Amino acid sequence: MTTKNELTKFLQNEFPQVSLSIESVGDRSATIRKKINHNHLRPGGTVSGPVLMEIADVALYVTILSEIGLVALAVTTNLNINFLRKPSSDSDIFAQCRLIKLGKTLAIGEVTIYSDGMAEPVAHAVGTYAIPPVN
Amino acid sequence: MTTKNELTKFLQNEFPQVSLSIESVGDRSATIRKKINHNHLRPGGTVSGPVLMEIADVALYVTILSEIGLVALAVTTNLNINFLRKPSSDSDIFAQCRLIKLGKTLAIGEVTIYSDGMAEPVAHAVGTYAIPPVN
Amino acid sequence: MTTKNELTKFLQNEFPQVSLSIESVGDRSATIRKKINHNHLRPGGTVSGPVLMEIADVALYVTILSEIGLVALAVTTNLNINFLRKPSSDSDIFAQCRLIKLGKTLAIGEVTIYSDGMAEPVAHAVGTYAIPPVN
Amino acid sequence: MTTKNELTKFLQNEFPQVSLSIESVGDRSATIRKKINHNHLRPGGTVSGPVLMEIADVALYVTILSEIGLVALAVTTNLNINFLRKPSSDSDIFAQCRLIKLGKTLAIGEVTIYSDGMAEPVAHAVGTYAIPPVN
Repeated sequence: MTTKNELTKFLQNEFPQVSLSIESVGDRSATIRKKINHNHLRPGGTVSGPVLMEIADVALYVTILSEIGLVALAVTTNLNINFLRKPSSDSDIFAQCRLIKLGKTLAIGEVTIYSDGMAEPVAHAVGTYAIPPVN
Repeated sequence: MTTKNELTKFLQNEFPQVSLSIESVGDRSATIRKKINHNHLRPGGTVSGPVLMEIADVALYVTILSEIGLVALAVTTNLNINFLRKPSSDSDIFAQCRLIKLGKTLAIGEVTIYSDGMAEPVAHAVGTYAIPPVN
Repeated sequence: MTTKNELTKFLQNEFPQVSLSIESVGDRSATIRKKINHNHLRPGGTVSGPVLMEIADVALYVTILSEIGLVALAVTTNLNINFLRKPSSDSDIFAQCRLIKLGKTLAIGEVTIYSDGMAEPVAHAVGTYAIPPVN
Repeated sequence: MTTKNELTKFLQNEFPQVSLSIESVGDRSATIRKKINHNHLRPGGTVSGPVLMEIADVALYVTILSEIGLVALAVTTNLNINFLRKPSSDSDIFAQCRLIKLGKTLAIGEVTIYSDGMAEPVAHAVGTYAIPPVN
């Protein structure tokens, strides 16, 4: 198990352009949070789809690394996302990820994405990461 | 049919943070291109997944708008992407989109994404947009 | 809310070739079960993928109809399924579905599929149904 | 390369319950065809979703085996399908598959599914197979 602090430091070093905070990790799960600003919006005053996709992808990455250690080269092989409701333009987005398979070469997880203050999720994703072989 | 120039101007106004150029549109298809810089890379020296997802999403959007007109409020409802090969870190990414359904309320297209100079695609996506009703 | 008995009768009338039983419905959720026989197997002595896809699809259908009533013409528009582990060839398959969106025109749910006696799921699906307009 | 006749014999032995014919194989592609009867229909007088999913899955399997040989234990790991239009209830269904990646451990392909006599496709799928290691 990798700690929240180790993961936070790793994420800041490896992905400095992605400004996300890790709220909790543990038991094949993680919750991450992103502050939304005007760069993340699209016409209609809502958070753009690609921002939600990035959050889903990073939530999966953080959850997998929390289990297997800081393996930077784990890569997404598939992501499927459904956009469910329009997020608020002035609330944080947070995402809860839960792994449904953690094998030697593949990990699969589902991510539920919320706009802070709304009861129902704004998006739901399922993704697969390939885990590089241990040398 | 919306022209390439109209689409380019629209994209620059509505999505100024997305730096993409439209290479061609027509016949329910479009090709778009993005210059890659170090902000788009991830560990392993390759283009990050979320950058490819954004390109897939915008390629669909451009192709749909080229057919239905500049309806800013068309929104993605589903996107499924497979990452196939590692893109080069110093080549443009370009994406070819082709609609497979253009209904009154839903449009579905597939997108093949290339790293310039590689023969085989680096990713493949299929996505659905909801088209807002005409008032 | 449609009752379990009403749904069972409806399913037997409309889909006589699909031999499934409904274990429970309620609160935007349902659990269904299917007895596996040799017609459902594939090389390697496991339940075939298409059988699991059918179970996922019917679990979604049953859960949606339990909420909106016996609308035979609701149709699947998208299904995404991940196969996680090899099911046992001589155990029932059961599936738990939970809706994550129930709109006027679209319903989206996720389905976790188990092989009876195994703790971990054998497959996970997310699907969308289009709900026909009320006349 | 495995020939059409070898594949047909293999399919009949390994999947006797699946009544499909192989129309052509070659160049990382294949076309298969299925006769539709009343067992394949659903309310609304159309071919049921699970029948189309099975055709997509088998089309991928046949195309992959045509390239790698008769490896019965190749298994689907992911399938994503969009249903585009209502197939005719009294026409054959045929499916054209094309591989977009053929790696050592994973193969990914897309499948376009038609109802004979209709110009536009009735469904489109993308799927991944895991290829077992050679001993």
